[in-house]
Amino acid sequence: MIGKEKVNLNPLDDHRFPPHEWALIENYPSSADLGQTETLFATANGYIGMRGNPEEGRDSHHVGTFINGFHETWDIRHAENAYGLARTGQTLINAPSSLMFRLYVDDEPLLLSIADLQAYERRLEFREGVLRRELIWRTPAGKRVLVRSTRMVSFTERHLALMTYEVTLLEGDAPIVISSQIVNKEDFDDVAGRRAPRSDEDPRKNPGLDHRVLRPEMSWHSPRRMILGYQVANSGMTLAVGADHRIETSNLFTELDDTTDDQGRKVYRIAAKQGQPIMITKAVAYHTSRSVPVRELSDRVRRTLDRVRENGFEAYYQAQRAWLTRFWESSDVDAGTTQRLQQAIRWCIFQLAQAAARADGAGIPAKGLTGDGYEGHYFWDSEVYMVPFLTLTAPEQARNALRFRSTHLDSARERAREMSTKGALFPWRTINGEEASAYYAAGTAQYHIDADIAYAIGHYVSMSGDREFAFGDGAQMLVETARMWVDLGFWRVNAAETFEIHGVTGPDEYTTVVNNNTYTNVMARWNLRLASWMVRRMEADSPDDYRRLVHTVQLDPDEVETWERCASGMKIPFDERLGIHPQDDAFVAKEVWDLENTPQESYPLLLHYHPLVIYRFQVLKQADVVLALFLRSNEFGLEEKRADFEYYDPITTGDSSLSAVMQAIIAAEVGYQDMALEYFYEGLLVDIGDTHGNTSDGVHVASAAGTWRALVCGFGGLRDDDEVLCFDPRLPRKWGHLTFRLAYRGSRIKVHLTRRQITFTLLSGHPVPLRVRGTEYLVGADPLAVRLSHQGAYLSSLASSHPVIGGRRKDGTLITAEVPEVSDVEFPTEEFSGAT
Amino acid sequence: MIGKEKVNLNPLDDHRFPPHEWALIENYPSSADLGQTETLFATANGYIGMRGNPEEGRDSHHVGTFINGFHETWDIRHAENAYGLARTGQTLINAPSSLMFRLYVDDEPLLLSIADLQAYERRLEFREGVLRRELIWRTPAGKRVLVRSTRMVSFTERHLALMTYEVTLLEGDAPIVISSQIVNKEDFDDVAGRRAPRSDEDPRKNPGLDHRVLRPEMSWHSPRRMILGYQVANSGMTLAVGADHRIETSNLFTELDDTTDDQGRKVYRIAAKQGQPIMITKAVAYHTSRSVPVRELSDRVRRTLDRVRENGFEAYYQAQRAWLTRFWESSDVDAGTTQRLQQAIRWCIFQLAQAAARADGAGIPAKGLTGDGYEGHYFWDSEVYMVPFLTLTAPEQARNALRFRSTHLDSARERAREMSTKGALFPWRTINGEEASAYYAAGTAQYHIDADIAYAIGHYVSMSGDREFAFGDGAQMLVETARMWVDLGFWRVNAAETFEIHGVTGPDEYTTVVNNNTYTNVMARWNLRLASWMVRRMEADSPDDYRRLVHTVQLDPDEVETWERCASGMKIPFDERLGIHPQDDAFVAKEVWDLENTPQESYPLLLHYHPLVIYRFQVLKQADVVLALFLRSNEFGLEEKRADFEYYDPITTGDSSLSAVMQAIIAAEVGYQDMALEYFYEGLLVDIGDTHGNTSDGVHVASAAGTWRALVCGFGGLRDDDEVLCFDPRLPRKWGHLTFRLAYRGSRIKVHLTRRQITFTLLSGHPVPLRVRGTEYLVGADPLAVRLSHQGAYLSSLASSHPVIGGRRKDGTLITAEVPEVSDVEFPTEEFSGAT
Repeated sequence: MIGKEKVNLNPLDDHRFPPHEWALIENYPSSADLGQTETLFATANGYIGMRGNPEEGRDSHHVGTFINGFHETWDIRHAENAYGLARTGQTLINAPSSLMFRLYVDDEPLLLSIADLQAYERRLEFREGVLRRELIWRTPAGKRVLVRSTRMVSFTERHLALMTYEVTLLEGDAPIVISSQIVNKEDFDDVAGRRAPRSDEDPRKNPGLDHRVLRPEMSWHSPRRMILGYQVANSGMTLAVGADHRIETSNLFTELDDTTDDQGRKVYRIAAKQGQPIMITKAVAYHTSRSVPVRELSDRVRRTLDRVRENGFEAYYQAQRAWLTRFWESSDVDAGTTQRLQQAIRWCIFQLAQAAARADGAGIPAKGLTGDGYEGHYFWDSEVYMVPFLTLTAPEQARNALRFRSTHLDSARERAREMSTKGALFPWRTINGEEASAYYAAGTAQYHIDADIAYAIGHYVSMSGDREFAFGDGAQMLVETARMWVDLGFWRVNAAETFEIHGVTGPDEYTTVVNNNTYTNVMARWNLRLASWMVRRMEADSPDDYRRLVHTVQLDPDEVETWERCASGMKIPFDERLGIHPQDDAFVAKEVWDLENTPQESYPLLLHYHPLVIYRFQVLKQADVVLALFLRSNEFGLEEKRADFEYYDPITTGDSSLSAVMQAIIAAEVGYQDMALEYFYEGLLVDIGDTHGNTSDGVHVASAAGTWRALVCGFGGLRDDDEVLCFDPRLPRKWGHLTFRLAYRGSRIKVHLTRRQITFTLLSGHPVPLRVRGTEYLVGADPLAVRLSHQGAYLSSLASSHPVIGGRRKDGTLITAEVPEVSDVEFPTEEFSGAT
Repeated sequence: MIGKEKVNLNPLDDHRFPPHEWALIENYPSSADLGQTETLFATANGYIGMRGNPEEGRDSHHVGTFINGFHETWDIRHAENAYGLARTGQTLINAPSSLMFRLYVDDEPLLLSIADLQAYERRLEFREGVLRRELIWRTPAGKRVLVRSTRMVSFTERHLALMTYEVTLLEGDAPIVISSQIVNKEDFDDVAGRRAPRSDEDPRKNPGLDHRVLRPEMSWHSPRRMILGYQVANSGMTLAVGADHRIETSNLFTELDDTTDDQGRKVYRIAAKQGQPIMITKAVAYHTSRSVPVRELSDRVRRTLDRVRENGFEAYYQAQRAWLTRFWESSDVDAGTTQRLQQAIRWCIFQLAQAAARADGAGIPAKGLTGDGYEGHYFWDSEVYMVPFLTLTAPEQARNALRFRSTHLDSARERAREMSTKGALFPWRTINGEEASAYYAAGTAQYHIDADIAYAIGHYVSMSGDREFAFGDGAQMLVETARMWVDLGFWRVNAAETFEIHGVTGPDEYTTVVNNNTYTNVMARWNLRLASWMVRRMEADSPDDYRRLVHTVQLDPDEVETWERCASGMKIPFDERLGIHPQDDAFVAKEVWDLENTPQESYPLLLHYHPLVIYRFQVLKQADVVLALFLRSNEFGLEEKRADFEYYDPITTGDSSLSAVMQAIIAAEVGYQDMALEYFYEGLLVDIGDTHGNTSDGVHVASAAGTWRALVCGFGGLRDDDEVLCFDPRLPRKWGHLTFRLAYRGSRIKVHLTRRQITFTLLSGHPVPLRVRGTEYLVGADPLAVRLSHQGAYLSSLASSHPVIGGRRKDGTLITAEVPEVSDVEFPTEEFSGAT
């Protein structure tokens, strides 16, 4: 349901945050929204993340530095225990902060909230990947001081962050002290060794650890370098963080170096003269490990820092710019709309780089590395929201993310045993591979995580043509997840014999533990088909890989037939009377929640109603069936999609930030253009507008990725659930054009959409086959322009007999077409048994 | 499902535990089963309970003294929180123990586990209400010592326990020390002030408190008396415990008195001569309160103890015997079977006295006061298992129990608000009236607690004719619970318009949060009807009471019609194909659990499978529909009952001890005589045979009460869901007779059943109307004997056209009959709309 109030398309104050297409800019600071701005101005590279805290400290909602995968474990104590409940809590650790430079002029500290600021500007540059701040401070003594600082987390050097802090007295001389620090600031109570538990009822927040997490193992310094090392109390993980400092100034100064267990300090005392700049550079390196001793990690820190000394800062700035140039070449979307909205679009896409770029062997947490909301866990949205973006823009990163999942395969096998099923069951939320969801009804019960991973694998293999991954880790995961479904479901002998899956929760968490959740069954069916297709393909094309697979997963050839049989027999609920796919067997029998008369302050419902109350109504937290309509687009006809959308939309609260972007895509497809735009804006402005009120906990990464998909798939009309890229554009009436880029099987293309035509340009690689509104094309050396007729009236044309992308014609026949292979991996071409 | 192995009808070793009809006897102690024997030999009166620990300490599984309602509270920390989850944990406190007498002869302690015992006998006397022990100990020095002790928790003096300890040297002289103690032994870690959490996964066990619970407020002693006082850390409750000691001996002795925060000691040092007995008496009083200061409680302790000094012990022994004589006159069941089984039957019934006799203003915990299993909470089984027994044997105690519930009405109203419903929602488990169930799926979701309470009220009012209670607290509770159902359910407009109740859990906890649980709907319908009947009756018969009610609960006259409409429209699930009442809307669609091939060590399932696994199968922890068939017997025909029983029996694990007794009743009714006996034995021997392996946690009080009902209702054939007592006996073939007593509207009758006839004798009060196999009788001054034809072949006769108690004839018509009123409160007589 679209909110009662329209989305504010300019949620930021133009004066304070002037619109800019390639930067987020703040013209004066405020204590009122520190939590949000810390998130908006965070810098990260997928491994290290630093919230946008000011260098001088104090004025913070939450000082946060996060290293991907660096976590503490703890025993989950269930108020009432039961067999198999998640036992090991996992919480991303707030690592020692290295961004601090305390500044004293005439012994008076600079503190933003109380300082007399003559000028102030903070900019996060999307093309440079640097956070810059410049301010002029009139000290209590009346002297004006220019302070310039920069902060960069490197995309090219995974473990590195570079900072500069430059101070110039504009009037008069003064003693200046600059204290650069690395601080481990755990807010525990030293006496009892425990922290006060947070009493917050919001289950989305990090409940907080109640013990000292980082045990000091090392603190070392020399005149130019300091290193601190820690081991984590329960998880045993290790961390070393080090910093090199350098000062450039013509003023006289002395230096003091000092490290203790929880602090490293480099203090400069400077006899500053007017107009003589003081420039301090600080290179910081973080290294973490599951098990390597701190001493070894400190050596790695040294090596990273030594390289910076050799190469100099400028080399890394250049590399950062070059990296981002390539990034934008493959990922930018130009929507031809307002500067503010374009800024929001690029900010979202920039966050995707910050979340994923150097995740490398780690996963992609729900908040990236910009906050510890959801305890830094990896969820399904990694595969359903993030990875498909990576697949179509930076396939090598998609591969990393999927390979990361495969490192959890053994844990998933073990968890499946514990849950009394065969195969592998991936954890609903996790850092280390163990299930960490303490509330099974909206956690472990979301078995669809297995199918979501399979979906991402299928999508990646199909779009990238990566045979090595497909026949290796990919196949293993497909086999083990398929096995899980076969064992979880059962054949129900009723009027017809159907394969049913009971006792699961779909993506919508306002209905839990149901029978035959449509999303789950649709996705499980796809999982089973992908597995069978993959195994059969390997057997035919790559006997060595096949034999290796058979051996590794102890594959019985009969299994493949079982998967196919279960897929064919899979029950997909359909309600003849309503003409829709019910969310589950019992969904439409429930009472309908009266959203019209639910007061605004009662949202999100989960914070105002007991789960039992929410569960007994027809009310959705987020798209569920509607999400399946998009992910498995070619299994549903347009009429079906429209009926489902029309049924679910009025009862979908959008209390989850994952919802709006997907509703935008289907709204666009089925003809609700205004609604599609509204939903798109809702998704786009989740963080920039803090529309969910919790941006302070970190960036909504999935929503940001969904924003890209809403642009490319919703308005660009891309459907990618078949073996080729298919387009049926839906350019919003008010937009002049839409330009985006896609990667496909080693090639890259640019897509430029206007009201009258869609133009494809091959940027690199082989010619790319694709379809536009059912017609096949090959994009070769010359740009390909396809005229789009009746752009303004596409709805009526589609609603009559216009063939729909990969779907069905009105007469019910499937649209299928032979497509030239461009890789030695092709996609399943069997006909689908249909949606009912 | 009857277990694979037949119930062992003699689970106790005849040598160690010789059968006896009126006592439980132990001929030698064992360390192997301390937990069980402590429970079996516990002494209690419904207010104070003491586990059967030996006086000398040490040899204990769990030293336990419990005072009804005396509890600590604690904040429930949910691993993942949500709105409205139970917040306040409540745990029955292990109160200071007063049963200890340490004995030293020649400075050598008597410790049962290592003592050289020449003789030993321990007896729990069901007619005297005294636990006696006698032993002869050969000391390490070779001297034989006779030790006799007794322990009695008084049924007549609620706060009192009496103990004696008598020592006689049989050979030679020796210095003897006897140290009588009151000990507060909290097993917390003094250094950290915390206890180690119990890591047990069994949700039925008390998770234990992790802090010091009792704060010492007072310790005082004089030469004859000691008093300790405490306040509970969080709940603020207070307790005072005191003891008077007296010694009788012709030996020389000295005394030492001493109290500290956690201990009171009375030490006798005796120069004992051979053959000169030393007799020590110890009177102990416990007083507790929600808020009264310890000083005031200590005064109450003094008054209790002063009375004992005045009256002497013997007066209390006599009163105890007299009380139990009356108890057995109203509650005894003589089954004419083996001594062992008769012993078990009387042990069970004795436990009911121990659990309820002096609960007075408190509730009846699931384990009585014999252990802290289930944290000492009050559950629904109080109303469904215990109160009906009390109603038919000791109506004044039933009234107390129901009045106790009414003291929670305000909390229940508040909880209903929190759960977004009108009226009142009683807590699934509680001590102080607040919901303490941390696992809502098998807790708060059991909304049927409201209907269970209404059922017990209806049953009590109908059987007792207690107009004052009916028109006062009873009516209020019926109104508020009816309101809850109206608001919880909704009208579903489908083929027919039905009133449906979604998102609830029935008694069977192996299926949770379902739509239209048959048990719940049947009982909710009865709740609604009872409320409407009660209000209409008051309006007609007692305008003053009616006006008071209307004012108190703000009753809108239209509400009554709403209740009636909802009751008439209530959906009672029925599966035409299977011809049964499905447990809920989705139940029969689920996969059937293969119990035949489930290994014995995988029971109970809840300790070996994740809830999600259990929930997706057709498998029952306990009778659900089958329980409704008994409680609302006259709403179902015999064929329906048999079909339901036959469907559910093979998939019912009986993992709950509440199950067997109810299965026994319906098995008997529908003609499975052997099975009925097997289930009855299962229920009967739950504790005597420790068949669930957790008797050490305390007596299964509901099962003990169910044992009485299985005898009276299962074999005696009593149905009491109509306004008169109805009988259709099912005497087991092997039993010679069955004799039991019933209270009915101020009268008492004895029922004597043999193979050929059933005889009723009026013990006191007015003539009693009743029905035997559909024929009406009035039991007056002379015994009434009714011949029973074809006793051996009742099944076939019933299965054809024999009218069934209050049920339907084969042609589907309801059996109804006008019954003479014997009280000014009569029961609803409207026809029921039927079971489908």
